[in-house]
Amino acid sequence: MIRFFVTPEELSGEAIQLTGENARHAKVLRLKQGEEVLLCDGMGEECLCKVENPEDLTLRLVERRPSSSEAAVRVSVYMAFPKADKLEHVIQKATELGAAEIVAFPAERCVSRPDEKSLKKKLERWQKIAASAAEQSGRGVIPQVLVLDSYQSALQRAALADKALLFYEHEDTVTLHNALDSGAWKTVSLLTGPEGGLEEREVQKALDAGLTVCTLGKRILRCETAPLCALSAVMYAAGEY
Amino acid sequence: MIRFFVTPEELSGEAIQLTGENARHAKVLRLKQGEEVLLCDGMGEECLCKVENPEDLTLRLVERRPSSSEAAVRVSVYMAFPKADKLEHVIQKATELGAAEIVAFPAERCVSRPDEKSLKKKLERWQKIAASAAEQSGRGVIPQVLVLDSYQSALQRAALADKALLFYEHEDTVTLHNALDSGAWKTVSLLTGPEGGLEEREVQKALDAGLTVCTLGKRILRCETAPLCALSAVMYAAGEY
Repeated sequence: MIRFFVTPEELSGEAIQLTGENARHAKVLRLKQGEEVLLCDGMGEECLCKVENPEDLTLRLVERRPSSSEAAVRVSVYMAFPKADKLEHVIQKATELGAAEIVAFPAERCVSRPDEKSLKKKLERWQKIAASAAEQSGRGVIPQVLVLDSYQSALQRAALADKALLFYEHEDTVTLHNALDSGAWKTVSLLTGPEGGLEEREVQKALDAGLTVCTLGKRILRCETAPLCALSAVMYAAGEY
Repeated sequence: MIRFFVTPEELSGEAIQLTGENARHAKVLRLKQGEEVLLCDGMGEECLCKVENPEDLTLRLVERRPSSSEAAVRVSVYMAFPKADKLEHVIQKATELGAAEIVAFPAERCVSRPDEKSLKKKLERWQKIAASAAEQSGRGVIPQVLVLDSYQSALQRAALADKALLFYEHEDTVTLHNALDSGAWKTVSLLTGPEGGLEEREVQKALDAGLTVCTLGKRILRCETAPLCALSAVMYAAGEY
């Protein structure tokens, strides 16, 4: 079924009209009268609608319901700023895989870090990538992309989750299984380092902040592979598939 | 520790000399006398060596052992030919994530499929990508990249594993958990479709061939995301992390 993201305001009434980008998209798709489409507010609510008039793109509400494609577990992906387009790759893939938010932060060995000036534009671009991936994968929520200005603030924010995990290539005892098998969890933070890895003292800071340091296996994963591997495994552990 | 892939023949003696590409690489790295390096035959055996002479790059064997970075489970990734560079992406990432082999095959909705003439060159290129990712991620085995000429042969080959799974976006009952929770397994085949998905009759053929059809959750994954998500989850289920 064709899906459109609209604002929560647009979704509040009984009669809905597609506008702007959605209208242009709908024209291309040549919606037919009576055809069912799904409108999502990007925050977890969706409306099943029928096309009333394909000319002016008015829709009639059939059913309002919570989005059926969201995971029961809320996973936040914390990624140290990587080089070039790797962050964009992770934003797209993590959105498909059901992440609730993607948070970029600086770490000591980060070679790239957007300056204040370019950050606003980049954030807009990153949020668009998340929106587009959410639409394509049938998400009911568009994950938020956030940028934090210090490693310490990333740790403090990540630590608020039921399970706050940092993946470190030199950890060889505590597995993701170990970390997830104890106690109940509804919210999870997954923190991974930049290309060169995290400094030992950064790992110590994470322990001090209450994170669990664990391994993703005996192979060294690239910085863009680790968060997606961890996210896929956590969604499996949460019973999503 | 620095790692080199050598041929099994080069690894058979007590005195080993780095040659060719490895020698060039070793010169760049400026190996020191007495420095420890790891030589892997790419088939699961590795030799811990010490540099005897940094000039002519002779090494002395310290210990011969099975590779410590290989997964206990053997996972084969079967992927319908995708467009452009997506197969290369999957080869690189699946290698990092520990796949034993990556097998490309044609499916009805594949829009891209290399012709006979270009295939040999492409296979060489793909195998190089696997070798390079294996080296970077510290694998002891270079996964083989294979190309099959029919969907049916992919099914027959995949079905030989203890668990042969096909992921289908319209399956909403059988989960990966369901498929893995019954019985023991040491070998797993993961089969995913092309951009447009698999045809219903292709899914029926897979069932006939003995594969289990299961879901990767409520979100629609891109054709390059699905195999890596499944592989990450299977490695987690196998206790790798």
